[in-house]
Amino acid sequence: MKNKADIAVAGLAVMGENLALNMESKGFAVAVYNRTGARTEAFAGGRGKGRNILPASSIGELCDSLERPRRIMLMVKAGSPVDELIGQLLAHLEPGDIIIDGGNSFFKDTMRRTAELQKKGILFVGTGVSGGEEGALHGPSLMPGGDIRAWEHIRDIFRAISAKAPDGTPCCDWVGPDGSGHFVKMLHNGIEYSDMQMIAEAWELLRRFCRFTPETLAALFEDWNRGELESYLIEITSEILRRKDPETGAYVLDLILDSAGQKGTGKWTAECALDLGTPAATIAEAVFARCLSALREERLAAAEILPGPSVSEAQDGKEFAESVRQALYAAKICAYAQGFQVLRAASLEYNWNLNYGDIALMWRGGCIIRAKFLDDIKRAFAADGDLANLMFDPFFSDALAKAQDSLRKVVAAAAMSGIAVPAFSSALAYYDASRSKRLPANLIQAMRDCFGAHTYERIDRPRGEFFHTDWTGSGSVSATSTNYNR
Amino acid sequence: MKNKADIAVAGLAVMGENLALNMESKGFAVAVYNRTGARTEAFAGGRGKGRNILPASSIGELCDSLERPRRIMLMVKAGSPVDELIGQLLAHLEPGDIIIDGGNSFFKDTMRRTAELQKKGILFVGTGVSGGEEGALHGPSLMPGGDIRAWEHIRDIFRAISAKAPDGTPCCDWVGPDGSGHFVKMLHNGIEYSDMQMIAEAWELLRRFCRFTPETLAALFEDWNRGELESYLIEITSEILRRKDPETGAYVLDLILDSAGQKGTGKWTAECALDLGTPAATIAEAVFARCLSALREERLAAAEILPGPSVSEAQDGKEFAESVRQALYAAKICAYAQGFQVLRAASLEYNWNLNYGDIALMWRGGCIIRAKFLDDIKRAFAADGDLANLMFDPFFSDALAKAQDSLRKVVAAAAMSGIAVPAFSSALAYYDASRSKRLPANLIQAMRDCFGAHTYERIDRPRGEFFHTDWTGSGSVSATSTNYNR
Repeated sequence: MKNKADIAVAGLAVMGENLALNMESKGFAVAVYNRTGARTEAFAGGRGKGRNILPASSIGELCDSLERPRRIMLMVKAGSPVDELIGQLLAHLEPGDIIIDGGNSFFKDTMRRTAELQKKGILFVGTGVSGGEEGALHGPSLMPGGDIRAWEHIRDIFRAISAKAPDGTPCCDWVGPDGSGHFVKMLHNGIEYSDMQMIAEAWELLRRFCRFTPETLAALFEDWNRGELESYLIEITSEILRRKDPETGAYVLDLILDSAGQKGTGKWTAECALDLGTPAATIAEAVFARCLSALREERLAAAEILPGPSVSEAQDGKEFAESVRQALYAAKICAYAQGFQVLRAASLEYNWNLNYGDIALMWRGGCIIRAKFLDDIKRAFAADGDLANLMFDPFFSDALAKAQDSLRKVVAAAAMSGIAVPAFSSALAYYDASRSKRLPANLIQAMRDCFGAHTYERIDRPRGEFFHTDWTGSGSVSATSTNYNR
Repeated sequence: MKNKADIAVAGLAVMGENLALNMESKGFAVAVYNRTGARTEAFAGGRGKGRNILPASSIGELCDSLERPRRIMLMVKAGSPVDELIGQLLAHLEPGDIIIDGGNSFFKDTMRRTAELQKKGILFVGTGVSGGEEGALHGPSLMPGGDIRAWEHIRDIFRAISAKAPDGTPCCDWVGPDGSGHFVKMLHNGIEYSDMQMIAEAWELLRRFCRFTPETLAALFEDWNRGELESYLIEITSEILRRKDPETGAYVLDLILDSAGQKGTGKWTAECALDLGTPAATIAEAVFARCLSALREERLAAAEILPGPSVSEAQDGKEFAESVRQALYAAKICAYAQGFQVLRAASLEYNWNLNYGDIALMWRGGCIIRAKFLDDIKRAFAADGDLANLMFDPFFSDALAKAQDSLRKVVAAAAMSGIAVPAFSSALAYYDASRSKRLPANLIQAMRDCFGAHTYERIDRPRGEFFHTDWTGSGSVSATSTNYNR
């Protein structure tokens, strides 16, 4: 054992513990600290026993125990706990030391902290950590961003502990300046929301239209997991579908309340998309679907008074199931296209110069949305680093050309049968609107000009020339501007 | 003329000018001020000439010219200009004086300002003003909230200048504490976004499926405006459809670029709904549809590579048009149900004790979403002030029962024909999810528990008991909790 630790982990909830154990297993000496000292001792004497884990009973002791430059990874709840811990650390740190925030911090907080700490000579990194508890222990996807001078000091540890893509590449790379790492992690979670919602919709359609048994459904998802949908979430869906409650013998899924929780990163993604003016409606629908699921009492009451059609079984269950599979694939491409559009808008807005292919590769292993599919995304951005929309890449436009018809059939069947498929139908609307030469938005502009003199541009005039019609009067058209603020 | 003015208007863009003229026309003496004095003089010597309009060349002069308590209405751009103007006014005001912000301020700014000014003895009011320039001049919908002690001093002016519902009731009432007036105005605008998007989708469907001429379409909207859809926006749609460009003879609508602008209140509404955890997906879809329309270059490129089906003309155009009308009505009810759910969530969150029926009445005249329909909403909340969802009111559940089938047909037809109807399909998904006894959200909870140990509740156990399954291991189920923060 060395006298000094290579890195510290502050905050010993399960994610912090698992990351510390992961680091130690890769040959690093890890100092650990928790606000309540009993937890530190319990960890050091428990899961950390006999390993190169150095418990510290105070912040000062933690900082003293570290090699220079010090590397301290915070694994505490996002928000004020991060600022408080940083405040406590500052008294014990020297210029050049590194603080890494591995929680799910909002990226604007990370922007602020990077700038504030830079003034004090401390290198701040905000890193996304995905993969849940298992990922933290055996290999998470890591998305670090912030003060790039920190990268050379943490790279070896980060790449050692991270997941590896099937070709062996670490699922960890430097994302970019200030809040970009946490932004990319947030976006990952937003995509995760839409992935999960779309899988849930697919399952609902199969259950209602094909009336397959849970075993058949599990086998079907297992089968899907051997094709273009191959992914962690499809894999666990088949495991979940099979799992029985040992006590009652019932399928566990049937016992679970249909009210989905959320912890905010999906909401942030939708809000950021709105702020950036980028159409990520499918991700937003997935977030709102969780909100609606939570209103269970109201739904039970509404079921008694709001009518709808009944579902008639699909004539050919196997054929319908294949349509659902293709619909899921098409909808997934649309949702990822939206997600990468948000990344692109953020990269431009904040001057992050993001490498979208590298990001896809960071998500290739370890994280919740890991999927074979991300190789195709990596390839698409390798071919065109400034691809405006994932759907425009030949591989994906071909895939959509083949699968879009199934998405239409499934959305239409759900509409006619009273089954809610908010993410599927939003993805289809996104696909169709995105390929529209002409949207009815000209009517919206006409209305805005009519009631608010907001003016409009014309298709037969250059962009940037604004016109106003006196709609209720003479109909005269004039170039104009307005100060009305709405 | 009196020596002192009854009220002041600071900020003389067109909205400020029109409000001042409206006040003056109702017998009030109005002091006016603008930061650039030339504008004040131009107004006083122009549209304000020969009327009881008192120009002030400085903030001090403006304050000196007012009766006590002073009433000063700010009509400046939302954001820092409001704070700056308040700062300048404070030097000249006395306790009990009233500042009214009539811009589209974000409600949280209004909350802050109300509290800050209360400490200084100044009564602050944030009021929604809707109806555009015409409304400001002839009768806007006014939604004041803030320091209730101000109400008795501004009520007579506000009610005099406001629009009147068809039964003569002023479209102005006290909304509630602090930011509630601006929140209600923001929500009004959010609903306006979905109203406009749904009308645009209806128009697109009619145009593509029925191939009606603009004249036939205009007549159809005129006809719709005599039924349950009677509203300002339907009325102006028929006027817009008819309007020709005198220069080219073309329909003006055909010349307008199909990229819709936005000024932020729709976005705020969607963000607030996300923050409050309330499912307002249809409003969000309307905002995102504008974002997507703005990406016109990308759409033109995508139209060349992303395929879709062609549209086959409806066999019976009249019948299809009636389905579209009913679909629009059903979707509109769903969007308003979402809007009022957001109001309800905000009222609970901020302790505003909102009166939803009164709010419907404030929107009955003057504002952009004014519609006969709001009488039905007023009635619904008069019958049950704590109605959890507008769709549960017997009038609206009956209306939905009749119209839902048309909404299904139209969404299915659009899906099969490659026409994007994001708001219609989102409204249908909202309807169907809201009446679902069982949503597939249990699968989402199972996944969350599987990868993040987020736990779940069970349908056979009381709420508030949380369970965890070791999904990839033995399958044991245990009551548990986790500190993992995602």
